[in-house]
Amino acid sequence: MGFENTDFLFSTPEMTEIFSLPNQLRAMMRFEWALTCALESQGMAEAGAGSILGSLIDAEFFDTSNLERDARESGNIAIPFVQQLTTKVSSANERASRTIHLGATSQDVLDTALVLQMRQGLQLVLVAINRLKIALTKQIEVHAETVMAGRTWLQPGPPVTFGLKLAGTLAALRRHQTRINAAAHRAFVLQFGGAVGTLAALGSAGPEVSSEIARILELKDPELPWHTQRDSLVEIAQVLALLVGSLGKFARDIALLMQAEVGEASEPTTDGRGGSSTMPQKQNPVACATVLACAARVPGLISTMLVAMPQEHERGLGLWQAEWETLPQVFRLTAAALARSIEIVEGLLVDKTRMDSNLDAMLGLPQAEAVSAALAQKVGRSAAHDILRKASFQSQETREHLSAILKTFPEVTAHLTHADIDRLLQSHGYLGSAQHFIQRVLGDV
Amino acid sequence: MGFENTDFLFSTPEMTEIFSLPNQLRAMMRFEWALTCALESQGMAEAGAGSILGSLIDAEFFDTSNLERDARESGNIAIPFVQQLTTKVSSANERASRTIHLGATSQDVLDTALVLQMRQGLQLVLVAINRLKIALTKQIEVHAETVMAGRTWLQPGPPVTFGLKLAGTLAALRRHQTRINAAAHRAFVLQFGGAVGTLAALGSAGPEVSSEIARILELKDPELPWHTQRDSLVEIAQVLALLVGSLGKFARDIALLMQAEVGEASEPTTDGRGGSSTMPQKQNPVACATVLACAARVPGLISTMLVAMPQEHERGLGLWQAEWETLPQVFRLTAAALARSIEIVEGLLVDKTRMDSNLDAMLGLPQAEAVSAALAQKVGRSAAHDILRKASFQSQETREHLSAILKTFPEVTAHLTHADIDRLLQSHGYLGSAQHFIQRVLGDV
Amino acid sequence: MGFENTDFLFSTPEMTEIFSLPNQLRAMMRFEWALTCALESQGMAEAGAGSILGSLIDAEFFDTSNLERDARESGNIAIPFVQQLTTKVSSANERASRTIHLGATSQDVLDTALVLQMRQGLQLVLVAINRLKIALTKQIEVHAETVMAGRTWLQPGPPVTFGLKLAGTLAALRRHQTRINAAAHRAFVLQFGGAVGTLAALGSAGPEVSSEIARILELKDPELPWHTQRDSLVEIAQVLALLVGSLGKFARDIALLMQAEVGEASEPTTDGRGGSSTMPQKQNPVACATVLACAARVPGLISTMLVAMPQEHERGLGLWQAEWETLPQVFRLTAAALARSIEIVEGLLVDKTRMDSNLDAMLGLPQAEAVSAALAQKVGRSAAHDILRKASFQSQETREHLSAILKTFPEVTAHLTHADIDRLLQSHGYLGSAQHFIQRVLGDV
Amino acid sequence: MGFENTDFLFSTPEMTEIFSLPNQLRAMMRFEWALTCALESQGMAEAGAGSILGSLIDAEFFDTSNLERDARESGNIAIPFVQQLTTKVSSANERASRTIHLGATSQDVLDTALVLQMRQGLQLVLVAINRLKIALTKQIEVHAETVMAGRTWLQPGPPVTFGLKLAGTLAALRRHQTRINAAAHRAFVLQFGGAVGTLAALGSAGPEVSSEIARILELKDPELPWHTQRDSLVEIAQVLALLVGSLGKFARDIALLMQAEVGEASEPTTDGRGGSSTMPQKQNPVACATVLACAARVPGLISTMLVAMPQEHERGLGLWQAEWETLPQVFRLTAAALARSIEIVEGLLVDKTRMDSNLDAMLGLPQAEAVSAALAQKVGRSAAHDILRKASFQSQETREHLSAILKTFPEVTAHLTHADIDRLLQSHGYLGSAQHFIQRVLGDV
Repeated sequence: MGFENTDFLFSTPEMTEIFSLPNQLRAMMRFEWALTCALESQGMAEAGAGSILGSLIDAEFFDTSNLERDARESGNIAIPFVQQLTTKVSSANERASRTIHLGATSQDVLDTALVLQMRQGLQLVLVAINRLKIALTKQIEVHAETVMAGRTWLQPGPPVTFGLKLAGTLAALRRHQTRINAAAHRAFVLQFGGAVGTLAALGSAGPEVSSEIARILELKDPELPWHTQRDSLVEIAQVLALLVGSLGKFARDIALLMQAEVGEASEPTTDGRGGSSTMPQKQNPVACATVLACAARVPGLISTMLVAMPQEHERGLGLWQAEWETLPQVFRLTAAALARSIEIVEGLLVDKTRMDSNLDAMLGLPQAEAVSAALAQKVGRSAAHDILRKASFQSQETREHLSAILKTFPEVTAHLTHADIDRLLQSHGYLGSAQHFIQRVLGDV
Repeated sequence: MGFENTDFLFSTPEMTEIFSLPNQLRAMMRFEWALTCALESQGMAEAGAGSILGSLIDAEFFDTSNLERDARESGNIAIPFVQQLTTKVSSANERASRTIHLGATSQDVLDTALVLQMRQGLQLVLVAINRLKIALTKQIEVHAETVMAGRTWLQPGPPVTFGLKLAGTLAALRRHQTRINAAAHRAFVLQFGGAVGTLAALGSAGPEVSSEIARILELKDPELPWHTQRDSLVEIAQVLALLVGSLGKFARDIALLMQAEVGEASEPTTDGRGGSSTMPQKQNPVACATVLACAARVPGLISTMLVAMPQEHERGLGLWQAEWETLPQVFRLTAAALARSIEIVEGLLVDKTRMDSNLDAMLGLPQAEAVSAALAQKVGRSAAHDILRKASFQSQETREHLSAILKTFPEVTAHLTHADIDRLLQSHGYLGSAQHFIQRVLGDV
Repeated sequence: MGFENTDFLFSTPEMTEIFSLPNQLRAMMRFEWALTCALESQGMAEAGAGSILGSLIDAEFFDTSNLERDARESGNIAIPFVQQLTTKVSSANERASRTIHLGATSQDVLDTALVLQMRQGLQLVLVAINRLKIALTKQIEVHAETVMAGRTWLQPGPPVTFGLKLAGTLAALRRHQTRINAAAHRAFVLQFGGAVGTLAALGSAGPEVSSEIARILELKDPELPWHTQRDSLVEIAQVLALLVGSLGKFARDIALLMQAEVGEASEPTTDGRGGSSTMPQKQNPVACATVLACAARVPGLISTMLVAMPQEHERGLGLWQAEWETLPQVFRLTAAALARSIEIVEGLLVDKTRMDSNLDAMLGLPQAEAVSAALAQKVGRSAAHDILRKASFQSQETREHLSAILKTFPEVTAHLTHADIDRLLQSHGYLGSAQHFIQRVLGDV
Repeated sequence: MGFENTDFLFSTPEMTEIFSLPNQLRAMMRFEWALTCALESQGMAEAGAGSILGSLIDAEFFDTSNLERDARESGNIAIPFVQQLTTKVSSANERASRTIHLGATSQDVLDTALVLQMRQGLQLVLVAINRLKIALTKQIEVHAETVMAGRTWLQPGPPVTFGLKLAGTLAALRRHQTRINAAAHRAFVLQFGGAVGTLAALGSAGPEVSSEIARILELKDPELPWHTQRDSLVEIAQVLALLVGSLGKFARDIALLMQAEVGEASEPTTDGRGGSSTMPQKQNPVACATVLACAARVPGLISTMLVAMPQEHERGLGLWQAEWETLPQVFRLTAAALARSIEIVEGLLVDKTRMDSNLDAMLGLPQAEAVSAALAQKVGRSAAHDILRKASFQSQETREHLSAILKTFPEVTAHLTHADIDRLLQSHGYLGSAQHFIQRVLGDV
């Protein structure tokens, strides 16, 4: 048995538990229990067999080291799992053991167990998204009018507000919820096809048994088994990847704002947190780094899930197996990215003074566009743009405020008074529709 | 100007056209036209300016080689595009040219043009999916009862029907339609935010101008600009990738059935098609190979789209640009995979005789499970499985039919007559719920 | 602590051990020991301090659960590791503890430990490659003249020999050895730079201390620290990925030959191996499937390693962390792919009779090229190709042997006698330089 | 015929030309010419046939639109290429046309042409690396002692010099040269195997013809054909990817230094360069953005190349084709990243004053480690670290210089005088081995 050294960064304990072997075995037990119950309801299994299996779901009776040894030979753990289960039940009630796994194949129990685990995993994800949304909403309300420099290509642009920046993430989270729910709707489906997807071992009883298993497990009964049609599984991985991408964008922004030279916002720092083994003064952005690491890792895993789609005929040779560690990793990384994002938003430190002083240090340049727009009405957008470009370069070179420069340009003063210029260059006055957009996201419009 | 040598394989002429420079410029023109019309409706642009721009949408007046030269310096083609457009309009009506691009930024015109191109591209995709569904439905109806060996891990399993195999793809295509429509609903949204997403250059008129542009272009007006929230764009790439993955699964199956040693189905072959430069007898599966090549290429492109999500602040530095060739490639590969899949399904050659003879050559082994299931009712699933496993190995070793072997096993004949054994080993009788599943997919149940 | 459920497939016990937490801590201990020894040799640490640390290398005194808890806060395990180590040493000898980690930073100990682990891991890889080469060489010698159908695009081509097919893999393995050794030469380098790569905390003693640590650990002393220059690390992952790709090609070929309809070669099958939970007759290609799964998974991990290269300034924010689980996974998957490939080659089952009968069933078509080449000398390559193409299609349609068809073509019999035709269509006579190539690879030419 | 709209960013004209269709056809012509010459030297082709083909290498007689149309049917352009070539030669000299392509298959001409194109492409790459190295060396010499803040996790650390930062990139470039040359040595190999790699159509003359072609084209003659052993091809892509990763690291650093709030270095800005369509003051880092975009795109392409390695038997079905656009894209992106990196380094703007003032603004905190190291000698590393951590937090909170804080700590002043403290906190005095490392990289040590 190996183990990951770095779950402390790249998972949460809850998500690790969901994709642990004990929980996988529990989910597999639930499938076998439901199957036996369904067979029993059709008169195809010994009366009471379902109850016996039901009592074993949480019994943790498996010899996991034998399970793994045998799995190496058989290629999956379902085969030794069924053997150990059959032995266990048989020792209590031989007749009840006779129909264990009847009609099913390894992939049925493994895939359905995976669906049950994913359902638990997505539940955690949705709860975390909700918590993150609440925290973001609070920060947006607090910082709706907190003016700061906008930045494009990592260069200063006209001002935005910190609330507007966060509103972009909140709106994305809502879309992710919608996507996750839609994908879950497609993916929470029983897999039950038997050897090749015909349920032939059940004669004509296949559909009834299938729908009964689905009912018991609260899954959808599929049109037809999906053993080598993996799209709904891959879709789950994809919607999580999109979510992690959005969190990566958020974390990158915070990490950039946290640079000493910017200093406008910071993830929470506490003693002991983010320290360095050699630099006493350090408070490293551990949470941002973790989110960004997750965002760097998930894309490669998604490419693997997609590469693994063309699975041969009625069961893949290698590509099915390629999913087994990959999909749980996507869940673990998503859980870590969410947990760390919550830490960041709930403990966010914002330095409004610094936001103002940074804007002031930019000599009015970020608001150059405002003057350009005003001037455009007189001389056309293109000519205005050229005038301001010239003035901006002069300001950057001389380190004089753009206002002072502009007041020396006759082609400007012909159309704008000194007061006009000063008013246009006010950063707090050049926010356009920022409040309107924020109110829309907050649902107040 | 470079060009792709291999568009003949990896695109369709229609999709290539959509993502060509001329069509991109046309889409950019539509944005600028709609913006000017919207400004005009607010009294912010010269009356008649919108009409002038409208008349230029298809005028192809751009000097594309200057455009590309200048784009190298400015980092995108929007800047020289706006310059050339302004010059053009100005020469006709200087006042009309004054408000071109007013309030917008490069990313607004590039992103919105991309959305318009994607709308055209997805239209082609949906038409092709429909055609493929019609062709598949016909083949499923014809081959609902065409029995063939099921195959798991590329080894023989119990029989399926060819119609059942195709039904899996048809069901997946329906899910892809649903996904594409849902993703399109989220992605067909105007991008209009100005320099940093506040529309500050428009003062308080931003929301009105924005909603008017959206109305003209028949796009949704977003809650707030999405310049660095790329999730809906990446989602489009992802749903196409899922589709291509399903087509890859289909093409892999056909290519495997087309092996000379299997010979059960084939993509259409015509003289000249799939020839070899040295082997006179060859009829290579060109269409299957193309679909598989697309399925091998798309996953890496999706990982790039995801990697590019954490775009900094109000405009990314490098990651936005990383999308520019990547997303069109996903569309081109999807178009190629669909076009080739249609060729395959519409011209599919099926050899039922060979399907039967291949099944016969398997000595009854694929139906071993049927006897095992019958026996399980007497001796339990596990014991029955062991008996059949032993008999199967003996059959493989001696090359005798499983039926003959089983009739020599007293533990079998104690429970089953020779007639039972023969009946159970009939491949055409061991199809379980295959027809039921097919009818569900065809909507007849 | 989480754990991987599927190490039974996707690692070997030896490789899992190398990248386990206990072994990582051991490697980190070796770094700290070497550092203290080097400081001691410069008179910068208490005499005897090195010995104390040396005695602790295998002492396993760490409280790993505290380590992981604290690592979550500090962002890596080096910080709590140094704290626990300092406490441990201090309790024995306070003065010896004073210079633990002096001059170093977390990344120094983590990166150097990783290099030491990679050295162990590559050692395993090279031993496995050697074993695989020996097994392949034997099979090539046995099967140098074992004639079988060549196959292009999964369609029959002229004959090859099974030895020739395997020789391609052997030649690739040699190239992989060369690459691994060259990459190891570049990567087995000490990382020691202190906070930002200047070793400033050591005053002017940096270079001496560095070269002494390198000497003790038998690593190269770098030109300059490489904390944010990750190329040599990524290169290691890349050369392993290339190796896994070659093994994937080998496994795919065997899996295809193992299809019941082809039946020419097979990975070893033993009772219990590759069984199915429902199909009694199954002997699934578990080893091939595992190799193919590894080959499907590694590419995505390599893309992650490459994505993680642009690490900021003197220590990355997120991208360094993205390597931590990714690189060990590449090692584990490589180990699994090698171990399974060895199983396949050492136990390979080859059915020469089936190879012959499959060739015979192809009606002479694979050797069409031989007649075409002979005819080309009389009528030109292009005309000859057209004649044979026509004859081949006729043969495929009528299921008559190509020989019979050709003898009815006057444009053929004008140049070739019936005996010529029969001789040219002999599969065993149309092997060209196959033996020559094999002898070259075996080093006998 | 499609074309890429964005070659202006993502290629250079020279690299685009190398992977253009006309140049591919030229390279294919060179293969056919060399083959005919080799056959002629063996008496297997008409005397003078080689000369005729040689005269056509640059003749550009191909009808490329027919070529592409036919290629769609045949699956590659080699088949119509050979047809058009044969027709062309035949019209001049029918006998000379008879042996065109004799013994070869499509993949031989396509793969060998690709090798020839890659040789041209790598030549460009190596020239560009050299130019970049020269430019870097100059900057390193100028800035060896240009002190600036080190930065880890995007937070301030002890000082480095700008020269040291650049030296890391220079050292990486040297390793890349070594890797490229080694990979080229393995990859510049003729592919010539005929239908299935046996050269059977040439009887026993295969090896002689092969070595003669190799001699003419100045390629290595392989041990055996490598049509489905793609490792050396993928390796070329991988070494380029490593190079682009290193350039991405460099560009990211410059882009971060170029932030207005940092302002320490900048890519060259010229009027018109990096402008914005709406913000007059903008000088966007277009070159850095392009390099970063390349670094974001290449990893996904490498994963595709690796995914495409397990090509079936003697010619792949889809995976070979997956390489066709992917490998040229890697070359194009590499060329673009190099060209832009050269622009950046050659025109680099460095603001030493800003570097100093940024360091000064950090209140001595980056040099906290220096005091900690000095104090460690008295009280142990761990205790010293804790004292400085406390003082640093106090400094950050009060915005007082660390020096002033430390002078109030008795546990500091017990061991260090005020002068000691001031000296230790001098940023220019805390550079450790920086100069030593730089001199090593410059080869002066």
